[in-house]
Amino acid sequence: MNVSCFCPGHALYRKGMTIRIAILGYGNLGRAVEQSVQAAPDMEAVVVFTRRDPASLATAGTPVAPVAEMDQWVDRVDLCLCCGGSATDLDEQVPQALEFFPTVDTFDTHPRIPEYFAKVDERARAFDRAAVISTGWDPGMFSIQRALGEAILPAGHTETFWGPGLSQGHSDALRRVEGVAGAVQYTLPVEAAKERAAAGEGEGLTTRDKHRRQCFVVAEDGADQARIRQTIVSMPNYFSDYDVEVNFISAQELARDHSGMPHAGEVIRHGATPGGANHVTRYSLDLQSNPQFTAAMVTATARALSRMLAAGARGALTVFDIPPGYYHEKSGEELRAELL
Amino acid sequence: MNVSCFCPGHALYRKGMTIRIAILGYGNLGRAVEQSVQAAPDMEAVVVFTRRDPASLATAGTPVAPVAEMDQWVDRVDLCLCCGGSATDLDEQVPQALEFFPTVDTFDTHPRIPEYFAKVDERARAFDRAAVISTGWDPGMFSIQRALGEAILPAGHTETFWGPGLSQGHSDALRRVEGVAGAVQYTLPVEAAKERAAAGEGEGLTTRDKHRRQCFVVAEDGADQARIRQTIVSMPNYFSDYDVEVNFISAQELARDHSGMPHAGEVIRHGATPGGANHVTRYSLDLQSNPQFTAAMVTATARALSRMLAAGARGALTVFDIPPGYYHEKSGEELRAELL
Repeated sequence: MNVSCFCPGHALYRKGMTIRIAILGYGNLGRAVEQSVQAAPDMEAVVVFTRRDPASLATAGTPVAPVAEMDQWVDRVDLCLCCGGSATDLDEQVPQALEFFPTVDTFDTHPRIPEYFAKVDERARAFDRAAVISTGWDPGMFSIQRALGEAILPAGHTETFWGPGLSQGHSDALRRVEGVAGAVQYTLPVEAAKERAAAGEGEGLTTRDKHRRQCFVVAEDGADQARIRQTIVSMPNYFSDYDVEVNFISAQELARDHSGMPHAGEVIRHGATPGGANHVTRYSLDLQSNPQFTAAMVTATARALSRMLAAGARGALTVFDIPPGYYHEKSGEELRAELL
Repeated sequence: MNVSCFCPGHALYRKGMTIRIAILGYGNLGRAVEQSVQAAPDMEAVVVFTRRDPASLATAGTPVAPVAEMDQWVDRVDLCLCCGGSATDLDEQVPQALEFFPTVDTFDTHPRIPEYFAKVDERARAFDRAAVISTGWDPGMFSIQRALGEAILPAGHTETFWGPGLSQGHSDALRRVEGVAGAVQYTLPVEAAKERAAAGEGEGLTTRDKHRRQCFVVAEDGADQARIRQTIVSMPNYFSDYDVEVNFISAQELARDHSGMPHAGEVIRHGATPGGANHVTRYSLDLQSNPQFTAAMVTATARALSRMLAAGARGALTVFDIPPGYYHEKSGEELRAELL
């Protein structure tokens, strides 16, 4: 294993470098990653890898190559940003890409993270590489806030709220209801639960206490709206235990008002210091486009990984392992003068 | 220089270690640091160093020794937490302590940070040690948020707001006015300016636009309140350019209602991703006791420094150089399973 020496905070802020980026997968996230990388002064989008017919992809200028030809890009690519979904893509994509490149991914199936970390760690070490898993906003920025909040105020309680934001899984569940032609579901945080968390009374709050569900549904012609509503509000796991609002709208309204992918969320830590004082820290995000913000974090994480690699890091890494300054294009000297 | 190898995120989360802590300076901050260290399961408060007569200090159980005897504690102390003020103490204390121990400090005179960093860096390297400067909440937690916000959303604008909170410097200025027997000053953020920042219209806002000043004043018997008020609101630098509220209260009210040291603040980043979407990130603190929260951050930073040292770090460091997981007592495995 080739581990070099690490002297943090100094020599690693190299100015003028260009990080050569491959993007694996070209859905909403891959497309947004391409834009972020193109806008970064220290990066170049070199290639998009796809399982589809390369000729079928209209990128914003980045050459396209089939996944099967990744091996031919080893000398032209520094990092591969894996932009598939957590459900099935990343489990396959990341180990595959690690044979040729260090990787960054947004694996977000929380309960499976330890198992996924172990798998990626083993694979990365087998090829003497490093891989950042689970970056983005949650996991990612929210994880950083949860760790810092608990580290500084160990006697306390953290609550994470999601929304207002579009939930893909719940929208899919609505579309499977008979008589539904189209639908979206927004997860909304319950403001009263936020205030309880900020007041130090968050203990015992469940995900259900903290969120409610707002549905916009297009019914098929002649469908029974009362039956659709009843099917939705009684659907186990997805809706039956929540406060649910069902709104019927037209297909035109759905297309006009609900085609964005906004999201938001907040991490609230309430804690007491040993001297008896209470403190609250709150970190909130309000995102007009979930994939665009996630892509921005993936891009900043790519920069951080290139510095971690220069520092000798190997194996799987998470946001917990990355110094904040590594995400930023500026030198340590600039950061201290301007942002400390 | 003795630099060991660094493999981030893995072997450095040692469980069961005890970090032996010295506290240099025993004012509000030193006292709160002692409490935080005593509450930490992985730390021990070994000694308080003071320039005063050691017999005059009533600590919460930690032995006291004169600063002149620091050299006798080299084998019994791992880290020295320097709890003096930025105005004069730290410039002297930190270089002095670095002869014997790695240090953590809360140097917060923003414009002087680059010069202070250079001085501490040189001194730390001369003794083959590491030193974290400028931790706390601002600089400290707010700096982390400013760096992450700008790294993720490079096309955007950051605003920092302070308060509601007690300002020591402005309270001192009030007490120098003739006829004033006692006073406190609270800095209050202007909510309308916060909303401008969150809406992406923060550019051009000055500190004066963002804050107003609330004074609680005890007048001496027979003093002319109208003259005191006029002197305050026309005082250059401190008050003349701000929206100022002057309230006269009794000495009893001052003692009863204004002896705490609460503070608060918020960092707001507004930025656009290249795809055209706008995003807002907000990090806010609401602290019942400024010194207690600062002490909590100093204590967590001590833990992080012990890991940075194990990783081979030398010289001056800031929060920009420290991985978030290093502040937390839990192992990397626990953090990934519970907080990612």
